[in-house]
Amino acid sequence: MTEAEFIQALRRLPLHAGARGLTDDAAVVAGLVLTTDTLVESVHFLSTDPPADVAWKLVAVSLSDLAAKGARPEGVLLNHPLTDDAWDRAFLSGLAEVLGAYAVPLIGGDTVSLPAGASRVLSLTALGADAPAPPRSGARAGDTLYVTGTVGDAGVGLRIARGEAGPLGLCNRYRRPTPRLAEGRQLAPLVHAMADVSDGVLIDAARMAAASGLAVSLDLAMLPLSRDLQAFSGDNRAARLAAATAGDDYELLFAATADLPLPVPATAIGRFVQGAGLYLYQAGEPVPLPDHLGFEHAGN
Amino acid sequence: MTEAEFIQALRRLPLHAGARGLTDDAAVVAGLVLTTDTLVESVHFLSTDPPADVAWKLVAVSLSDLAAKGARPEGVLLNHPLTDDAWDRAFLSGLAEVLGAYAVPLIGGDTVSLPAGASRVLSLTALGADAPAPPRSGARAGDTLYVTGTVGDAGVGLRIARGEAGPLGLCNRYRRPTPRLAEGRQLAPLVHAMADVSDGVLIDAARMAAASGLAVSLDLAMLPLSRDLQAFSGDNRAARLAAATAGDDYELLFAATADLPLPVPATAIGRFVQGAGLYLYQAGEPVPLPDHLGFEHAGN
Repeated sequence: MTEAEFIQALRRLPLHAGARGLTDDAAVVAGLVLTTDTLVESVHFLSTDPPADVAWKLVAVSLSDLAAKGARPEGVLLNHPLTDDAWDRAFLSGLAEVLGAYAVPLIGGDTVSLPAGASRVLSLTALGADAPAPPRSGARAGDTLYVTGTVGDAGVGLRIARGEAGPLGLCNRYRRPTPRLAEGRQLAPLVHAMADVSDGVLIDAARMAAASGLAVSLDLAMLPLSRDLQAFSGDNRAARLAAATAGDDYELLFAATADLPLPVPATAIGRFVQGAGLYLYQAGEPVPLPDHLGFEHAGN
Repeated sequence: MTEAEFIQALRRLPLHAGARGLTDDAAVVAGLVLTTDTLVESVHFLSTDPPADVAWKLVAVSLSDLAAKGARPEGVLLNHPLTDDAWDRAFLSGLAEVLGAYAVPLIGGDTVSLPAGASRVLSLTALGADAPAPPRSGARAGDTLYVTGTVGDAGVGLRIARGEAGPLGLCNRYRRPTPRLAEGRQLAPLVHAMADVSDGVLIDAARMAAASGLAVSLDLAMLPLSRDLQAFSGDNRAARLAAATAGDDYELLFAATADLPLPVPATAIGRFVQGAGLYLYQAGEPVPLPDHLGFEHAGN
């Protein structure tokens, strides 16, 4: 089964009113925003990634979901598999760093052992409070699609982490993403829909459009790319498509009226219109959709 | 690192006020009880266990933590690793069964892929409401230690699941534990301390005593054993020690005054006294503590 098929099957179970039909990255229960993420060794992180960076990423990706709802982080629960001492101790030091950096306390968790040689699988559940919690499904026809920061950096960073020569700054965007908590707090009360870019701009934009019952058009030429990325990849269509389909950026993607005075820097990259699907352009010229719009999980 | 060492290291991180110092199986945040549990293939369940039973157990063990706090289940978040379709579909049918049996809706989750051949690692986070939430640490000197139901059945059930001949009823106590939600709701407002028996009566009683700053004495002769267990294991000291140190029973263990009229059936098995540690007896005669009081996780 693919991830999408599995989630579709989950939708046939009794759902909590706060589950938002499982169309969002976060749920809202009793005023709390809830989100949970699992990182798998050799899938979401490399066995060679420093354990402190794995801890950082585990926390940051859930905080990014809270950011997309405009929530103040309340705390996290950790599901940790014990493996070797050195790894676990380095993980703990990274955990202390990231919790300290964002002033997030630990609420609880579960600690288990793994069979020898098993892949590490770590989960984190984050709680947030005081959230306007704009849904993924709230885009309106005529809205502009915006993204904060630059995209594609983490995708290149993964290549560098795997051994290609390139700037450490890009590698750090992959290993130590920055949840856009302050930006999310300011944007959330103003926007119609918001999500973070975890699986790639194209797939995350397509999901926002589908959840909102709309089509979205997106112009590759408008994608904000960092200078480091342009220096590494060049700036042709292939490089822009790679940036648009790479995951792990954890920028905020949002739908808002075109004339909204933005409280934080962001780039207009597309537009929601009546209809369904994703339409891709480059400087106004239609571009065929790539085979993969972003990262999707599947069974063996 | 052992589980205890890892949790001790976590206690040095900033903790949420609702984390209860990580001495409890559940936290309380904004009036919600939160608990999370991870099940690992070949550690918490067998590769040969029916996937529907794994789903049942995954949900039941977290609901059991809610039961120990006297909470009404509000919903669950699921962290699911996609593997082969047949396993995942059978898991989904078990998930539908257990959520239906306890009227628990799905709030959200995360779905990931695993490297080929990796052990399945599943996590579930459960939320509960309206909970008196008696702590694990609230036992008072002079309190009686009680347990609901019978203990040791799941330990024997695991042996049957592994191939020994024995009654299916015991195997089902291992594969499909019953969270004592109704009992917990009635007991929680009346007792001083409560926890569920997940790792074994001895270790869970010792943890309750340690968290409460007390010693606990426990009489093996008073342990409630099922007829099936007595028929399978006999009823000598070895059988009673095995029952007292086997995990996965998910009965409720609680401390209350000796003269409390109990609203549900339970058996007095020991007593809290000033001091520290666990003291074991059989019909009043001291019994040396076994090497292992119950199930504890450790790294490789």
